[in-house]
Amino acid sequence: MILVVSLNPALDVTHHVDGVDWAGVNRPTQVRAAPGGKGLNVARTLDALGAEVMLVGLAGGVVGAAVRSGLRASGVAARLTDIEADTRRTFAVVDTGRGEVAMFNEPGPVITPGEYSRFLATYKEALTACTTVVLSGSLPGGLASDAYAGLIRIAASAGVPAILDTSGEALRRGLAGRPAIVKPNLAELAEAVGCDAGWPSPPDRSAVLGYAAELRDGGAEAVVVSMAADGLLAVTPTGAWHTAAPPVAGNPTGAGDAVVAALAQGLTSGWSWPERLREAAAIGSATAAAPAAGEFLDDDLARARVSVQLTDLEHALCPSFR
Amino acid sequence: MILVVSLNPALDVTHHVDGVDWAGVNRPTQVRAAPGGKGLNVARTLDALGAEVMLVGLAGGVVGAAVRSGLRASGVAARLTDIEADTRRTFAVVDTGRGEVAMFNEPGPVITPGEYSRFLATYKEALTACTTVVLSGSLPGGLASDAYAGLIRIAASAGVPAILDTSGEALRRGLAGRPAIVKPNLAELAEAVGCDAGWPSPPDRSAVLGYAAELRDGGAEAVVVSMAADGLLAVTPTGAWHTAAPPVAGNPTGAGDAVVAALAQGLTSGWSWPERLREAAAIGSATAAAPAAGEFLDDDLARARVSVQLTDLEHALCPSFR
Repeated sequence: MILVVSLNPALDVTHHVDGVDWAGVNRPTQVRAAPGGKGLNVARTLDALGAEVMLVGLAGGVVGAAVRSGLRASGVAARLTDIEADTRRTFAVVDTGRGEVAMFNEPGPVITPGEYSRFLATYKEALTACTTVVLSGSLPGGLASDAYAGLIRIAASAGVPAILDTSGEALRRGLAGRPAIVKPNLAELAEAVGCDAGWPSPPDRSAVLGYAAELRDGGAEAVVVSMAADGLLAVTPTGAWHTAAPPVAGNPTGAGDAVVAALAQGLTSGWSWPERLREAAAIGSATAAAPAAGEFLDDDLARARVSVQLTDLEHALCPSFR
Repeated sequence: MILVVSLNPALDVTHHVDGVDWAGVNRPTQVRAAPGGKGLNVARTLDALGAEVMLVGLAGGVVGAAVRSGLRASGVAARLTDIEADTRRTFAVVDTGRGEVAMFNEPGPVITPGEYSRFLATYKEALTACTTVVLSGSLPGGLASDAYAGLIRIAASAGVPAILDTSGEALRRGLAGRPAIVKPNLAELAEAVGCDAGWPSPPDRSAVLGYAAELRDGGAEAVVVSMAADGLLAVTPTGAWHTAAPPVAGNPTGAGDAVVAALAQGLTSGWSWPERLREAAAIGSATAAAPAAGEFLDDDLARARVSVQLTDLEHALCPSFR
């Protein structure tokens, strides 16, 4: 069983409008409301891959009730600790005419110490039945910025390795817990090492490897950097690799979460790093190929699995990255 | 007791953003979610005025649950019939920098015949305790366009007069039920009589009176036209009047619903038409003066009550308007 932690889930509301009037009344042609947040995406991908998965986290108010209801409908097993404040919404206005998307992300709830204590009790109990834990997404208000480090240590004391996928201070401070894997994207990687310059396209691999090594120095056992169409770059205790599937047209939203799901499945199943990375690149590519965010078609996954390229970077790199 | 019918309530979500990026990620500085729709506004104003009020209508799904929860918090007594489909949301993005508002109105649920039958049973039972019924807002999908005419006839057979505040086909077809009062605004009045020319400012009173007379010919006993800052123009069985309070700066949203609330209170209390119209203009003006949509301050209402001007149009008009 893989345990997925979502401390700050969301209700994602998407409105499709053909030619938005930004100073008037619009009538969306299509409306979708679904539970969201990175943790929920990971859990859904694992469920779709046939893995046993359990979601824990925090949810409250009428928006939290909508998240719970959507999760029940999706069939993902979840034990969300009730909080007083309202779970956050995100609104996406997709202008189908102009091809633009405006996102509106609500600030989200503030968690009380009592609520977090109740969550921790559920978390510890759930860990006893699990072999891997995934910690995904932002921290809600009220939690210390090293909350993920604490959760990773609790998991380690139960013998459960952790995958951390977050950003900013939560990622930097989370490294101290010594996660088995962290999975930043390029922007998150640069932010975590304090570099605010943009990336060229394609990104400079030696810079990516250098930054990834810094995260390993900070406490991560392995670092897998997702680089969108440029694939994955991994620095691990057994080697360094680049892997990518052929580029696809689709919707890249959720592809990074699908990569995390595959890494969790590989960790739980004891796959080698090359096996994990091939599968992660394939599922990421299949997810990016599907028009619906965070979903994939079995045919796309089968195609991606046979076309994934894996490059061993061992001999191309300075030994310090080993 | 005044009965208010809201067949198509909404959850109104408002995001305040200072300088919206319509092709990027925005973090609202202020988020508000509250039950909305014209009927709910009328019920809240009546409650604030100290009137006894009961709300009936239709609500479903997780959004309907949020509407119910918000109504409970507001203290308005409500008996909403449960429906399978989700109640609609409206999403308003207020750009505080540019002073613009973008509205996104979801299409809303489709009501099944069985659901409407259950609503009718609740409606008939509630009517036995009421002296006036207010029918406010749009009709949801699945209902015939003459649904309001049916509800007005049911009320009449229970001895309860009806105030109708809706637009388009629902208003045109609703007239056949012979409502005691209809309250269109200028745009709704023009649409109801099939005239799509815009109104000059200030509007041409003789044209307003002519159109209002057409609605009386169609079945309405009295017609009260709300003309925003230009006040109210009423054509009734006992006379025709214009009334207005001095113009105010504020938020005109919900002022028309406040006018309907005052008309309902006047009808239930047996006030004369001049009394009803003075109070309606005063509460409309006080509501427009408050910064929060649909709310008013007691001080503003007291000031508006003493400054309202009422003009008897009896001698200025063609006798056919009487």
